[in-house]
Amino acid sequence: MEHLNRLFDIHPWKLKTTQLHKDMRLQESLTSIGNGYMGMRGNFEEGYSGDHHQGTYLAGVWYPDKTRVGWWKNGYPDYFGKVINALNFLAMTITINDTEIDLAKLTPKSFNQELDLKNGLLSRSFTLNLPEATVAFTFRRFLSITTQEAAWIDVNLAVLDGRASVKWRSALTSDVQNEDSNYNEHFWEPIATSSNGETSPYLQVRTIPNQFDIEQFTVTAMMDNEFSTQLTSDYTQAPLAVSEEVATELKQGEQLSLTKRVLLVTSRDVAPSEQVAKAATLLATAKKETFDEALTQQTAAWQKRWELADVQIAGDDEAQQGIRFNLFQLFSTYYGEDERLNIGPKGFTGEKYGGATYWDTEAYAVPLYLALAKPEVTKNLLNYRYNQLPQAKHNARQQGLAGALYPMVTFTGIECHNEWEITFEEIHRNGAIAYAIYNYTNYTGDTSYLATHGLEVLAEIARFWADRVHFSKRKGQYMIHGVTGPNEYENNVNNNWYTNTLAAWVLQYTIDSYQKYRDSTQARISDEELVHWQEIIDGMYYPKDDELGIFVQHDTFLDKDLMPVTDLDTAELPLNQHWSWDKILRSCFIKQADVLQGIYFFGDAYSIEEKQRNFDFYEPMTVHESSLSPSIHAVLAAELGLEEKAVEMYQRTARLDLDNYNNDTQDGLHITSMTGSWLAIVQGFAQMKTTENTLRFAPFLPKNWQGYAFRINYRNRLLAIDVNKQVTLTLISGDPLDVSLYEKPYKLATTLTIPMPTKEED
Amino acid sequence: MEHLNRLFDIHPWKLKTTQLHKDMRLQESLTSIGNGYMGMRGNFEEGYSGDHHQGTYLAGVWYPDKTRVGWWKNGYPDYFGKVINALNFLAMTITINDTEIDLAKLTPKSFNQELDLKNGLLSRSFTLNLPEATVAFTFRRFLSITTQEAAWIDVNLAVLDGRASVKWRSALTSDVQNEDSNYNEHFWEPIATSSNGETSPYLQVRTIPNQFDIEQFTVTAMMDNEFSTQLTSDYTQAPLAVSEEVATELKQGEQLSLTKRVLLVTSRDVAPSEQVAKAATLLATAKKETFDEALTQQTAAWQKRWELADVQIAGDDEAQQGIRFNLFQLFSTYYGEDERLNIGPKGFTGEKYGGATYWDTEAYAVPLYLALAKPEVTKNLLNYRYNQLPQAKHNARQQGLAGALYPMVTFTGIECHNEWEITFEEIHRNGAIAYAIYNYTNYTGDTSYLATHGLEVLAEIARFWADRVHFSKRKGQYMIHGVTGPNEYENNVNNNWYTNTLAAWVLQYTIDSYQKYRDSTQARISDEELVHWQEIIDGMYYPKDDELGIFVQHDTFLDKDLMPVTDLDTAELPLNQHWSWDKILRSCFIKQADVLQGIYFFGDAYSIEEKQRNFDFYEPMTVHESSLSPSIHAVLAAELGLEEKAVEMYQRTARLDLDNYNNDTQDGLHITSMTGSWLAIVQGFAQMKTTENTLRFAPFLPKNWQGYAFRINYRNRLLAIDVNKQVTLTLISGDPLDVSLYEKPYKLATTLTIPMPTKEED
Repeated sequence: MEHLNRLFDIHPWKLKTTQLHKDMRLQESLTSIGNGYMGMRGNFEEGYSGDHHQGTYLAGVWYPDKTRVGWWKNGYPDYFGKVINALNFLAMTITINDTEIDLAKLTPKSFNQELDLKNGLLSRSFTLNLPEATVAFTFRRFLSITTQEAAWIDVNLAVLDGRASVKWRSALTSDVQNEDSNYNEHFWEPIATSSNGETSPYLQVRTIPNQFDIEQFTVTAMMDNEFSTQLTSDYTQAPLAVSEEVATELKQGEQLSLTKRVLLVTSRDVAPSEQVAKAATLLATAKKETFDEALTQQTAAWQKRWELADVQIAGDDEAQQGIRFNLFQLFSTYYGEDERLNIGPKGFTGEKYGGATYWDTEAYAVPLYLALAKPEVTKNLLNYRYNQLPQAKHNARQQGLAGALYPMVTFTGIECHNEWEITFEEIHRNGAIAYAIYNYTNYTGDTSYLATHGLEVLAEIARFWADRVHFSKRKGQYMIHGVTGPNEYENNVNNNWYTNTLAAWVLQYTIDSYQKYRDSTQARISDEELVHWQEIIDGMYYPKDDELGIFVQHDTFLDKDLMPVTDLDTAELPLNQHWSWDKILRSCFIKQADVLQGIYFFGDAYSIEEKQRNFDFYEPMTVHESSLSPSIHAVLAAELGLEEKAVEMYQRTARLDLDNYNNDTQDGLHITSMTGSWLAIVQGFAQMKTTENTLRFAPFLPKNWQGYAFRINYRNRLLAIDVNKQVTLTLISGDPLDVSLYEKPYKLATTLTIPMPTKEED
Repeated sequence: MEHLNRLFDIHPWKLKTTQLHKDMRLQESLTSIGNGYMGMRGNFEEGYSGDHHQGTYLAGVWYPDKTRVGWWKNGYPDYFGKVINALNFLAMTITINDTEIDLAKLTPKSFNQELDLKNGLLSRSFTLNLPEATVAFTFRRFLSITTQEAAWIDVNLAVLDGRASVKWRSALTSDVQNEDSNYNEHFWEPIATSSNGETSPYLQVRTIPNQFDIEQFTVTAMMDNEFSTQLTSDYTQAPLAVSEEVATELKQGEQLSLTKRVLLVTSRDVAPSEQVAKAATLLATAKKETFDEALTQQTAAWQKRWELADVQIAGDDEAQQGIRFNLFQLFSTYYGEDERLNIGPKGFTGEKYGGATYWDTEAYAVPLYLALAKPEVTKNLLNYRYNQLPQAKHNARQQGLAGALYPMVTFTGIECHNEWEITFEEIHRNGAIAYAIYNYTNYTGDTSYLATHGLEVLAEIARFWADRVHFSKRKGQYMIHGVTGPNEYENNVNNNWYTNTLAAWVLQYTIDSYQKYRDSTQARISDEELVHWQEIIDGMYYPKDDELGIFVQHDTFLDKDLMPVTDLDTAELPLNQHWSWDKILRSCFIKQADVLQGIYFFGDAYSIEEKQRNFDFYEPMTVHESSLSPSIHAVLAAELGLEEKAVEMYQRTARLDLDNYNNDTQDGLHITSMTGSWLAIVQGFAQMKTTENTLRFAPFLPKNWQGYAFRINYRNRLLAIDVNKQVTLTLISGDPLDVSLYEKPYKLATTLTIPMPTKEED
């Protein structure tokens, strides 16, 4: 079934296809590239007149949309923040013998497209029979991770037969629109262009004014078009575009190529008045290198990333391609260089969900970055939230509540999404922010953040929870009404078990941490507060069902018409594309792990029997229509010895986009959930656990795999884990370490190899 | 407290003030006039440059707004229907000695404004000290109820002192915007204008195109400007405006007046190509009358309405003014002439709630129109829904459900509001549509509608309910999850008692009616359905609390932090202007009668003790922030002998807008809840009941009133009820009738007078 949605061939390091697919949007999503600073969908340089989605996005450049629909209510945000489609700097028009090159109109004799995951090079080649000529085209591009302001595009055309009268125009244009614009509004206004042929052509634009005191971002892009032949250029400029055009005649056997270097700076880093000079300086440096020289540097830089992060899977190239694609896209979105940035759910690959920052970062990305990058990267993510503490307090105040409420969707820390059932109610996110502080501290062993900034954040989050609970006189317990749990297929429920659990945990962790570090932090918590918080912890109500032996997702969940997903006609899946929202909300079907998410977070607190009963109860009703879901199920299934289920869940997370499982990859990639395949392998298959200051593993090998291997950073050490018929731990660097393998303690000094335990037959 | 918000003096038949208020929006709302065909806010003819809300609206002329915010989901309507601000035909500019007359800039020496409720004449006069002149101005206008296409405006200016160089421009302009437009979009495009001075100046405009196959409405307005002195006119035209201008010199003691007749037709009634001719014909007729002659006809026509509908209150002019204002505004909005129209919550007085049709009509307006107009008027309201049955089936299908779901907000029968918690969940409205059929049948005794069309509607509504319930295996009962009850201060609750009660009632009423009238209706209900529906009725779950002896609003209501409104700081009221939506949803406070609404609908089914316990439990938590709430509480309080509470609730509903209780009248009047004051007097104070084919009364007289009197249509009879120290029933026309007074039977042939029973002391 899923293979019908697969566009690219299986290859361990590449996405390759010889097909020009009908669904250009899907093809564009999958061939997105980015460098943390900017990124774009796999749009064709020469343009494409068929249905597609032209999209370039710049990190941290957004617009507050004032559009209001429905009946506005107190506490709703003032604006709806959206990532905006930025200038198209790939733009070029190639005309040969008066025919414009456009693959929507011309059918290529051969077509090849390839995304190289080793270095982020996107290339494409095709041959066209044109009037009086047969011409071969090659396009290559990458976004530099060594100079993030730089984009490199290299195009070659070769006349195989006949003669070609070539007109070639290369442009920078901000005459672009958002896919999600309601009124075809343009988000850019012109500031300056230059194309006099003396300086390199550039375009400076600014986001249109807004009424919310949000920065108008100014962006300058400058290009150099280096043709392989000396040609005379014509320059043209319009308010929102600048272009350079050449014309020439090519005979059979002749070629013409263009290296287009684009340097782009934004007012996030460079003041508008200095942008042209800065771009020119960067461009001058770039011009010292050829495309291939720059590519060599790019490959070397990516190699360093892969040395630490690569996960190798032997015997299953589908799985191999999946995890590498995910890691590639994740690092293309965020590699921790800038603490003002975060990880948008679609990264640079689309506009859905408005870009910005979600709790996905803390819940799903932090564990990966902790293991696959230096601790500073994760600390940047923590500091991102620390720096936004004043805004989080503002958000709580908007709801009439004490403390701090971290936003559901944000660019600045201020909530900027406006569905009450999400933003007001999906408050468990506030717990995930606290959990990330715990996670960092526990994983790295570095208590310095917790003991200072961390506690400031925790204290305000705890205050929020203490104000958000209410005491039910009838039940004599503390309750949390009106929430949406991780399962967004229910809204506005009472006593979501996950939320209640997380809230009480935050209060306890804050009390405990404050008792340890009250002297080192600027946070101040009164004795009265500490006593009251303890009362809430002790009096918290947790819905459970003794007969079933499970935690109940929320108060009335068991009154629903309960049935397994397997009772549904598969034609109804995914539900969100076939059922009305009303039907989904009333159904028992779970979008993503909810009770199980809590059991995953606090694994040590529950017995294996409790885990088993809850997994057996909830898993059959879970449709995994959030991309964040399968990984958590994979980890728990692995722990419960349900290897087949764990592998199924791994596949779903690893190839979610490559096989378009949820039929929505055309809108963009599921960037934040791409950590899921890594979590499934490392925390699932390898059963890595890090609680209680001990690194533990209990790996199994999926039966169709010959082996898998990965590396992790852990407390100033670099370790390699190799799982095949035996399990090998190697300490590549750092001091010797106590580890646990299958619950037996070992001292790891250099290498440790033990045989895979034989499986008990069920 | 509330008197601070009172703009107009107390008077039994008028709204009068000598103040030009700071809050022009409030003043404009309260001086709105309408004639069922068109209407407008109390905008000043000569314009007003200060903050205000220019608004003219045409019945049934609207636009489908495609704006989408948030994350669209299946089942959401395609568009958000909105009433659109139509052409301003009052428009005029008066310049005297180069000073433009604008009360935002000039301070009048004297100011008088008056709305005469007897005939709908809005008049205003003031005197201004201008450069070199003192001038007195008088403006009068009304919208004709005898020729609904006609608006009459009469203006006089008199030079009291000095000399006046007058320029006077009178215009029709469609260069208007909606207050609620997000992008300052214009909804009108020009078709034609003419101002050549040969034919009368006219303006023809059309609503801009839309993508939803919704009619583009074409409107033509034609004006005649008759000045008291023969003057030469200059005509100007722009795409969206046409105007006529004169200039003259006036000396001390001289006057100049203008009678402006405007005739307006829309494509709802007249094809665009015939509109100019039609308007010209209507205008020619209008020109045969003077303003005062037309006003005499208008007064006579209103007098006929008042003869039947007037409620007289002796000894309390505040109360008297309140109910007359409400009846005036109701009839200005709807008097049943056109079965394609309905009663928008703001009528012609504002844009909030998008105009259109709500369940308010069936629940709150039908009882009034049944009693105060001919049965045909209510039948038109029933036919409105009957004619939209196919659209209601479409709405159900949008939610994946069987049968018919009448919309929450609509212009055509298709749902056009997009908040899921309202439109998908506030499905109790579907019960109100059925209840209106019962109400009509029970009140009029006319079973013919029920026996034919009514059953077709009932069968489809019943099918909806039968599909919308689910069977909870755990409880062994039928439940309705995921609803919003009448109390919109809770959303997405389970087993709202009111909704469950209403759903089961609809099923039962449909079964019973089908058994009586299966041979006369085209509706077909299978035996299988009838059996299944009976199972649902018998197995329906109703939340209740035996200890408290009450029906529980919904499953977890009693877990809330319950407290009376009196525990709140009054500075926090109204909650919707001071609390976040999150806090409101989690609170126990009730926006409008919910359980009590059900007890009101089905009064015969509950004992007085049950009513008392539920009233005592819910009333203290009810904030009445829906204007539909106090009347229901007034009726029940009266039944329970809580006279003080009944009177308090009456005052709140009767003077809701006049005293701006909810601090939102500036957005427009609460048209559909204006029936509440009549319900409070007739069903409350007079305890009129009509169940079981008997007309019953048990009046009490509020202690500050000397008496009250009203008339009703009832089963081909006209009755007068007069309550003072005694109760007098008079049969004005029709056959003798069995009635019940204080639960004793009487035969009413001409007049029946009995003394008011002495009250028992509590």
